[in-house]
Parts: sequence; C-alpha cells; structure tokens
Amino acid sequence: MPSGEDRLIARFFRPLARAPEALDLADDAAVLAPPAGADLVLKTDGVIEGVHFFPGDPADSVAKKALRANLSDLAAKGAEPLGFLLSLALNDKADEKWLAAFASGLGADAEAYRCPLLGGDTDRTPGLISVSIAAFGHLPHGTMVRRAGARAGDAIVVTGTIGDAALGLALRREPARAQGAGLSPSERAHLAGRYLLPDPKVALAPALRECASAAIDISDGLAGDLMKLAAASGISVRIDTERLPLSLAAQKLVAADPALLQTVLSGGEDYEILAAVPPTRLAVLRKAAKEAGIALAEIATAGAGGGVEIIGPDGRAIALARPSYSHF
Amino acid sequence: MPSGEDRLIARFFRPLARAPEALDLADDAAVLAPPAGADLVLKTDGVIEGVHFFPGDPADSVAKKALRANLSDLAAKGAEPLGFLLSLALNDKADEKWLAAFASGLGADAEAYRCPLLGGDTDRTPGLISVSIAAFGHLPHGTMVRRAGARAGDAIVVTGTIGDAALGLALRREPARAQGAGLSPSERAHLAGRYLLPDPKVALAPALRECASAAIDISDGLAGDLMKLAAASGISVRIDTERLPLSLAAQKLVAADPALLQTVLSGGEDYEILAAVPPTRLAVLRKAAKEAGIALAEIATAGAGGGVEIIGPDGRAIALARPSYSHF
Repeated sequence: MPSGEDRLIARFFRPLARAPEALDLADDAAVLAPPAGADLVLKTDGVIEGVHFFPGDPADSVAKKALRANLSDLAAKGAEPLGFLLSLALNDKADEKWLAAFASGLGADAEAYRCPLLGGDTDRTPGLISVSIAAFGHLPHGTMVRRAGARAGDAIVVTGTIGDAALGLALRREPARAQGAGLSPSERAHLAGRYLLPDPKVALAPALRECASAAIDISDGLAGDLMKLAAASGISVRIDTERLPLSLAAQKLVAADPALLQTVLSGGEDYEILAAVPPTRLAVLRKAAKEAGIALAEIATAGAGGGVEIIGPDGRAIALARPSYSHF
Repeated sequence: MPSGEDRLIARFFRPLARAPEALDLADDAAVLAPPAGADLVLKTDGVIEGVHFFPGDPADSVAKKALRANLSDLAAKGAEPLGFLLSLALNDKADEKWLAAFASGLGADAEAYRCPLLGGDTDRTPGLISVSIAAFGHLPHGTMVRRAGARAGDAIVVTGTIGDAALGLALRREPARAQGAGLSPSERAHLAGRYLLPDPKVALAPALRECASAAIDISDGLAGDLMKLAAASGISVRIDTERLPLSLAAQKLVAADPALLQTVLSGGEDYEILAAVPPTRLAVLRKAAKEAGIALAEIATAGAGGGVEIIGPDGRAIALARPSYSHF
C-alpha cells in the first residue's frame, strides 16, 4: 500500500527519472559512477514563493527557474551537467494541476540541458512553496574555472544582455513604468520573460574551460559579481556603462529614468556569464560563442591593483547604493 | 563591500568549510575529485519548522537532525560520507544567536561524521525556517546496498530500538501520557532526545556492503519501510512484534496503551537500519555491529512470495491504519 508521498512521486516525478542512476526513484539514494578522470562540480540553489517567484507564476517556469539557476553556475565554472537532486516543499496551493505543470517544465529542461533528475525529497509545508536543487556537473580534473585567475590585460567579457530580469521584476511591481518609457508589448514581454525564465549559457562551458582565466555567473548583479571576481583575482576593472550590453527595452527604460541604471547593475538574476579572457584566447571564445548563438560583449580590460569602478554616461563614477542583490 | 549574505556566510559557515573542496565557500561551486573506482551515492533530505521540528527547538539540534537524516540513508546504502551542500531558508526568528548555535551544531556533526560542508545557499524567507541538505557518499563501484536483493531465508535485522522518536513526538504533543505510563524522567528524556536527534548508524556502512543482501534506512516507520524492502526484493516477511527491539520507555508506553504499537510501527524518524542478511554473513555483521557499539536484533526470516504480516502480542495480524509516515 504505497503512501500518498509514494504515489505523488510515482505519478509526477518517476516519468522524469529515466537516467539509470536514479534507480526509478525506487531506492533511498541515487548512485553515480563519475566519468573517469573527471572532477565533479557541486552547486545548490533554489527558489522560494514570494522571494524568487510570485505566487501564481506558472509552475513550469518555477521549476525551470530553479534548475536553470544551478545550470548557470555550472556553466560559469566550465562544467557540463550530470544530473540533479530536487528538494520540494509544497503547500496546499500546489495541487495536482500545479504539480503536473511543475513536473512537465522540469522534465522538459532536464531533457533540453541533458541534466537528469536523480533523486529527491518531497515534504508538505504549512508555509511557502520552495524548490531547492543540488546540481552536479563534470569537467576534466583540475579544469574548473575559478573566480580567481584573471590577470591584468585580460579582456572582461559578458554574455547576453544585462539588467533585463531586474527590470522585468521592476515592471511587475510598477507596470506604469513601461508606458512612461514607451515600451512595445514585445519589449515588455521580453523583460517579463527574462525575470521568469533564465537562459543559462550551458553551451559555453567547454569554451570557458579552454579560454577563460576566471569566470562567475552573474546572479546577484553585474557590479557585485564583478567585484567578487576582481577581488578574488587581484585585478582592477573600470567599466564604462556605455559599453554594457543592454537590450533595446532596457535602453529605453534607462533613458526614461537614469536611476534604473542602478537596477541594471545590481538588480540580479541575469544568469549571464562574466569572464576574464587572456587576449590570445579571445578569438577562440568569440568563435565558440558565435557557434552557440550566444552574444559576447567585451566590456573592459583588466588592470593591475584592485577595485572596480563603474563610469556613468556623464563620465563620472557611479556610487552604487548596494552593489549586489542580497537577502540579508 | 561584501553583502549581508556574504558576511553571514563568512561569519557562520566559512569556519565549517575546511575541506579544500569547499574552496572556502568563496567560489560559485564546490569541486570534488571522486575517489578512484568509487561510485557516488547521492541523497537529499531536509527539515522544515513546524513539520520536522518544533519552533523553538535548539538550533544546533535542528542542524544535526537535518544532516543526520541524510547520513542515515547513506549508511543504509553502505556508503561512507564525502560531504554535503546546505540550502537554508531563514526567517526573522533565525537571528545571530540562532545562526551561531545552528552552525556550531552543524560543524560538530560535520567533524564527528567526517562529512564536511562543501557549499550552500542561504535565502531570507517570509515563511518558515527550512534546512535542505544534499549529501554525498562513496563506496567501491557496484557495491551500493539496494532495497532489492533480499532472498528467502535471509535474516531480517534491525539496528538500535524502534519507535522511540515517534513516541517522543507523541509525548511532546500529550505530555500526560508519560505520567500515565509511569516513565521516569530519564526515560522521558530518552524518548524526547530520540525525536530531537537521530543517531545514524554510519559506522555500520562497510559491514552492510559486505554482508547485507538488501537494506533500507527506517525513516518512515518500520512497517512501511519493511514493505518497501520486501516488495523491491520479492520476499515475504512475518514480524512478531514481541521480537521488535523496544527501549524500556517504549515498552512501558505500549504496555499502558497498546494502541501505541501503531505509533511504534509506523510513526517514523527512527533513522535505524533494516537489512536482509544471508545466514552465512550474519556472524560477520553481528561482529561489526558489536565492535561499533550498535545493537542488532534479528526480527524475522524472509520467506518466499510477497507481503508483510505483523503479528501482535495476541497472535493476530495487526491492521495498520497507515504503514508509513507520509506528508501527503
């Protein structure tokens, strides 16, 4: 006589657990034979209702956001996905319809990113829905791309566009801003989508291992994450905001309210990659990014010493109220 | 300028992350070179305020309970600990004092069980405190002890005593029961302690690999977990409740209210190990258990066919209201 928890797992999650390592979710743990000569890269990140997503956000995108936040970190470290464990706290709002959509989104991403569900834990909570994921990646021994390692003279590059997710969140809180800035419906949808659904740059992982001297996933805002990389590497970086890759929608919003540049720089949830690349490797990385359909912008050149300076459109250094998103 | 989250991690968790794989919690992920020829065993389990612990329970025991629940699963699979990732959702009640106690408990256990903190994620939540852990163990390739594998004729053994944690929980809800059953203060403390702090049988892992044909960690109640092992292995088991290893406190409570036998059998949170052992291997396992100071009770012999029958003190089969603890 299976329990309600067993039935829930069998119905919604067993169909996703097709990797042999998951043992059909019918044992107490997953078992994995690591690829020979590989290091494992281990990451945990999660999303909480009312903190990382809005109550009522589509369950499939909640699942995808939780997984993709982890995949973005693995990619920045140069690791390719091996699989993940799922820890789920469900409240009464997570009914069968919610669970079906959640599992469908999770399964689609597990497939798309070749990152299978290996095991998990499901609890009922009187509190908020929360989804915690521990993801595992692999790479050849000793090749993880660290925060430390950048040197003076390296190019500082960024994938994709910066600030869209934070602006998408700002628009959900104050929709009137969109009209003020003259955003088209598709521009509004672009920003909203970037908040709802990160686009982790998983395909760039092998090229980062080959080319980058240091890298970090931009999840807490470009400014703060750049400071972390610069501090760990002992380099200085001077960023000219006019060189930042902004979407047209972001450009319009910042033009209408220059104070939003702070949101762009430190709002978080970009899930892009910031990397330092020696000049001799830049062409190789550019080529790999192009082949993967990933935009790559060179935003600065690392200098000696320490410290990060961000120069605004008026040529003056921008003082950030807080350089990165922090829960505390 | 480190963020509040960075300061919190630096203050409370960096001192615990002494394993080189944790990279001082100063990178985006941990990196692990798996032992050569080893399989990795992966498990996630967690605790939620108001579900697995009472608001106000000591923070050090909350941390230990979360880690030990995972260690118990690894042990039942025959795996020795490698390390863990911590995912923490903190509300306003988790102040500095709480965090200091939490980290102190976690650090003590990480040391005692040689299971170092490798990385983590900390979020502020408007909801309940929750602690989710993903733990990794290792064992020689192909040697994980599964739920399947038991055969007719195998001895069915159980470590420690059964039902104490569930009875400890019952006493917290209805303290008057203790008086009715004539429990001494130390017996009450024993049961309360077993609920608060599991005692995972980590030291038995190597011997289980060597001796057990199948095993499962008893976390959802002996009855339900035995059914899972029996179903996966295709064996039948007939348990005589008089052969169950009960603490003196549990014996007194059940004598005072025989209905509590249901709690003993299906209340959950024992964190003991149930294993099937071929008769030829039993002496070796007994010796290892004795050397590790772990009690081992032989409670049945596996039969052919399928199904689990539990025979009460009156010689009749017990019909369980629900064989295992389930959140759903």
